[in-house]
Amino acid sequence: MAVKGIHHLGVAVEDVDGAVELYGQLFGAELVQREVLGDQGVAAASLRVGADRIELLAPLGPDTPVGRFLANRGPGMHHVAFAVDDVGAELARLEAGGAELVDREPRPGAFGTTVAFVHPHAAAGVLAELVSDG
Amino acid sequence: MAVKGIHHLGVAVEDVDGAVELYGQLFGAELVQREVLGDQGVAAASLRVGADRIELLAPLGPDTPVGRFLANRGPGMHHVAFAVDDVGAELARLEAGGAELVDREPRPGAFGTTVAFVHPHAAAGVLAELVSDG
Repeated sequence: MAVKGIHHLGVAVEDVDGAVELYGQLFGAELVQREVLGDQGVAAASLRVGADRIELLAPLGPDTPVGRFLANRGPGMHHVAFAVDDVGAELARLEAGGAELVDREPRPGAFGTTVAFVHPHAAAGVLAELVSDG
Repeated sequence: MAVKGIHHLGVAVEDVDGAVELYGQLFGAELVQREVLGDQGVAAASLRVGADRIELLAPLGPDTPVGRFLANRGPGMHHVAFAVDDVGAELARLEAGGAELVDREPRPGAFGTTVAFVHPHAAAGVLAELVSDG
């Protein structure tokens, strides 16, 4: 298995600017980069917290995946991303094992990454992202 | 600010044994240690996933914090723990800044750690733990 560790923790928020400031005050988080992903309906901010990363996600509208998440559950932890070398190879391995997947093929993620999501049904209620940098 | 990074991700599950096996199959997680915390009503397992850690938490009964979490939200991500050198100093800093806290004093956590929790109201819906190893 080629999971190298936790790449980032994804947090759904109503307002990226407010959350960047809040996480800076609370945890010393520093903004690294921002990106708007129009096709996924989300504004993202990548923060460095010590040696690790948090990704803040705010919806561009209510009828988006993060918008629906906020409507159903409110703000909070949305997904955990695991760093892997080869997203496609890990997806194939998981699919062969019968795991329920959100994405059956790797796709472009935020900040130049390649990603795929594993369904929460597969992983004890946790939405897990597989991510490689590039 | 002395947050050194993500110490672990806490995941609430119904059954620790099943989740240990599942996370091994899905993500190559390896069981490091287990502990039953009777006063907190929880059975915990610490898993290594690559360079990082996941902590699985199962309730010892329904009328416990994790039991109520499962009843309300189902299994899934429960908290994120941030590694710090001095939990008491960070608590004092957060309290001076007006953050809503669960614990106003450091207390013993699982696996020999010292911990304190910051209320989700303070951190955009995220239950955050401050933890030092010892």
